[in-house]
Amino acid sequence: MAVNLKTPNPADLLPVPGVRLGVAQAGIRKAGRYDLTVIELAPGSRVAGVFTQNRFCAAPVAVCREHLPHGSIRALVINTGNANAGTGGQGLDDSRATCGALAEILAIDARQVLPFSTGVIHEPLPIGRLLAGLPHAVADLRADSWFSAAHAIMTTDTLAKAVSEQIVIGGKTITVTGMSKGAGMIRPNMATMLGFIACDAAVGQTLLETMTLEAADVSFNSITVDGDTSTNDSFVTIATGQAGNTEIIDAASDEARLLARTLTSVAIRLAQSIVRDGEGATKFMSIEIEGGANREECRRVAYAIAHSPLVKTAFFASDPNLGRILAAIGYAGIDDLNVERLRVWLGNPEEETLVAEHGGRAAGYAEETGARIMKQAELTVRVDLARGQAKATVWTCDLSYGYVKINADYRS
Amino acid sequence: MAVNLKTPNPADLLPVPGVRLGVAQAGIRKAGRYDLTVIELAPGSRVAGVFTQNRFCAAPVAVCREHLPHGSIRALVINTGNANAGTGGQGLDDSRATCGALAEILAIDARQVLPFSTGVIHEPLPIGRLLAGLPHAVADLRADSWFSAAHAIMTTDTLAKAVSEQIVIGGKTITVTGMSKGAGMIRPNMATMLGFIACDAAVGQTLLETMTLEAADVSFNSITVDGDTSTNDSFVTIATGQAGNTEIIDAASDEARLLARTLTSVAIRLAQSIVRDGEGATKFMSIEIEGGANREECRRVAYAIAHSPLVKTAFFASDPNLGRILAAIGYAGIDDLNVERLRVWLGNPEEETLVAEHGGRAAGYAEETGARIMKQAELTVRVDLARGQAKATVWTCDLSYGYVKINADYRS
Repeated sequence: MAVNLKTPNPADLLPVPGVRLGVAQAGIRKAGRYDLTVIELAPGSRVAGVFTQNRFCAAPVAVCREHLPHGSIRALVINTGNANAGTGGQGLDDSRATCGALAEILAIDARQVLPFSTGVIHEPLPIGRLLAGLPHAVADLRADSWFSAAHAIMTTDTLAKAVSEQIVIGGKTITVTGMSKGAGMIRPNMATMLGFIACDAAVGQTLLETMTLEAADVSFNSITVDGDTSTNDSFVTIATGQAGNTEIIDAASDEARLLARTLTSVAIRLAQSIVRDGEGATKFMSIEIEGGANREECRRVAYAIAHSPLVKTAFFASDPNLGRILAAIGYAGIDDLNVERLRVWLGNPEEETLVAEHGGRAAGYAEETGARIMKQAELTVRVDLARGQAKATVWTCDLSYGYVKINADYRS
Repeated sequence: MAVNLKTPNPADLLPVPGVRLGVAQAGIRKAGRYDLTVIELAPGSRVAGVFTQNRFCAAPVAVCREHLPHGSIRALVINTGNANAGTGGQGLDDSRATCGALAEILAIDARQVLPFSTGVIHEPLPIGRLLAGLPHAVADLRADSWFSAAHAIMTTDTLAKAVSEQIVIGGKTITVTGMSKGAGMIRPNMATMLGFIACDAAVGQTLLETMTLEAADVSFNSITVDGDTSTNDSFVTIATGQAGNTEIIDAASDEARLLARTLTSVAIRLAQSIVRDGEGATKFMSIEIEGGANREECRRVAYAIAHSPLVKTAFFASDPNLGRILAAIGYAGIDDLNVERLRVWLGNPEEETLVAEHGGRAAGYAEETGARIMKQAELTVRVDLARGQAKATVWTCDLSYGYVKINADYRS
């Protein structure tokens, strides 16, 4: 079902010096699948993270928020099958016990471990099985295991999501490799379900944190599948510093800009992969808003369109029922919006057509053109609000029978 | 598909003295169905209305806003099949031409006519066919035509929605009869798709307007099917004054309270009918939030739950996947929400069970109980935010294959 997304080629996923990954079958929810991942980081690695703004945040998110400020993070542990969210004090105890057990095996401090969980909410974590799986995951640690790790963090994903890019800074090759998971409950607010990007650049902690926030803003924080902000969203970047480049600390330097651009590029590819693999997705839609008074209102209009079940079902049907887009723009909450001035275009990678202007249907618009454009799987809705210079893009997918089926069946 | 909703019995829909209704087959979108309704009001009738807050409001809504302040409204004209929204200047001309033509037939002023349209957005109104149908609708005017009018205003509705109630004020019997339509694009903001309530009470104009706003707030403004606020939402109340009671002008009087309560009761029944007939609905859900710091935050939490596709698909599956409700509460935007204190109950008309407390699963909750409760079609989610005394209720339905089917097929 995924839209223009393929399983990554294992050979394309480049190891990042200083990072090793291991997986195990812990039987968290179902037997016989890899559901536990450990990522070990070399000493001196720097880590930045952004997490869900959901007030019902999961226990592992709370523990990440405790551990991250201590610095010196040396390991990440990720389980699927159970989100350890809505689990109260027991959930926190379980998440801390996971960190403690992994720390003991790796001979580090429990506060040097970041825990992540994803899966069903509101059910107790099967902590015994998880702890029993940890030694197996640690025994499996290898630098070239991004492919298997990307599979082991999946839930309703149909395909693994991972990419690599390389750049050269100060004569040193820098490798950036990332992976993500998520297909439903996707409307990240600060981060996605789970996203991890590692590089071997030497970069200052503060600058890494800034780059992480900026990358999240235009990637994981610019996608939606169903508007449901998860309890577990976490996006973490790692810089092991093993590439041998001079440490990058000046945000205005060419080196910093190149690294930031690359981290952002990888983050966008991973975030778009989540939408392409959105539950039941048959279309990948870019909602591009321009001419806004500020970025916030552009995002509000983009999300109104991206969340409208009526827009999403029309796209599923390849039906250019464009009045539904106008309606969504109209209720996006811009009180002084002038509908006489705004314009709306519909496009695919081959053509684009103006569909609405002067408060109504564009004079030159032909329904056949709209129908032809919508037959493709990659579609763009572009809106010029004619109010200013700000812009924003949000990516989403359509709403199909498949979405209902997956979410009506998910636990059974 | 509708949940516990039946076609009204024609004999239960009581004529309101001073109100006559007529319908016609104008062939607006499809031939052979009643799609044009005229409602004629006796001289001296008072009318109040609330309309969509969508910035892309339809042409007839704009014309209603022009005409209503002039007072002395004598007729309403309603077409289905075409919303006359997103139609620019031509749409306004068409809506004014409709009023002018009906005014000429009835020998009144065009500004004494309120126009309403519902149906497909962004397509030109077939004004010729509409005008040709008007004489037929006028020729059909009768006091006992609420049943046929309730059918003639339907679009994707599967059942007509109309109710009557009677009260006695000052020894005079007052009849209140209303009708509504709507099944999709339902998240009214000030009113529903279309709702009309008429009574024969004598009541002051200002008081009628107040009663209308109050009734809308707890009825049409407390429902959602898909979160899409329509371009055409309109809710109009009529008081013909023909019951012979002394005019009610004091909002604090027993008479005013009784009339307001009855108008609200009829409005709630009509609004709930829209949800019961929501596109693809198999469950009717009451989301009751209590213990809020203010009503606004209660409504925000209620709508977060009511709009979550994950919650709605879980209810479709009769799956007590209650973590999805916790997640929705968590992202509703209450920054200082204490998840340790809030409690969540799941219920049907026969039983209710505490499912969440202390930030996790309630100690006494058994999954079998949740599964048993969810098998019924009438369900309640009750949340105590434990922050104050405010409360709010929102009604919604589940998200099924049927919703996707209807909205992927709607124009074909």
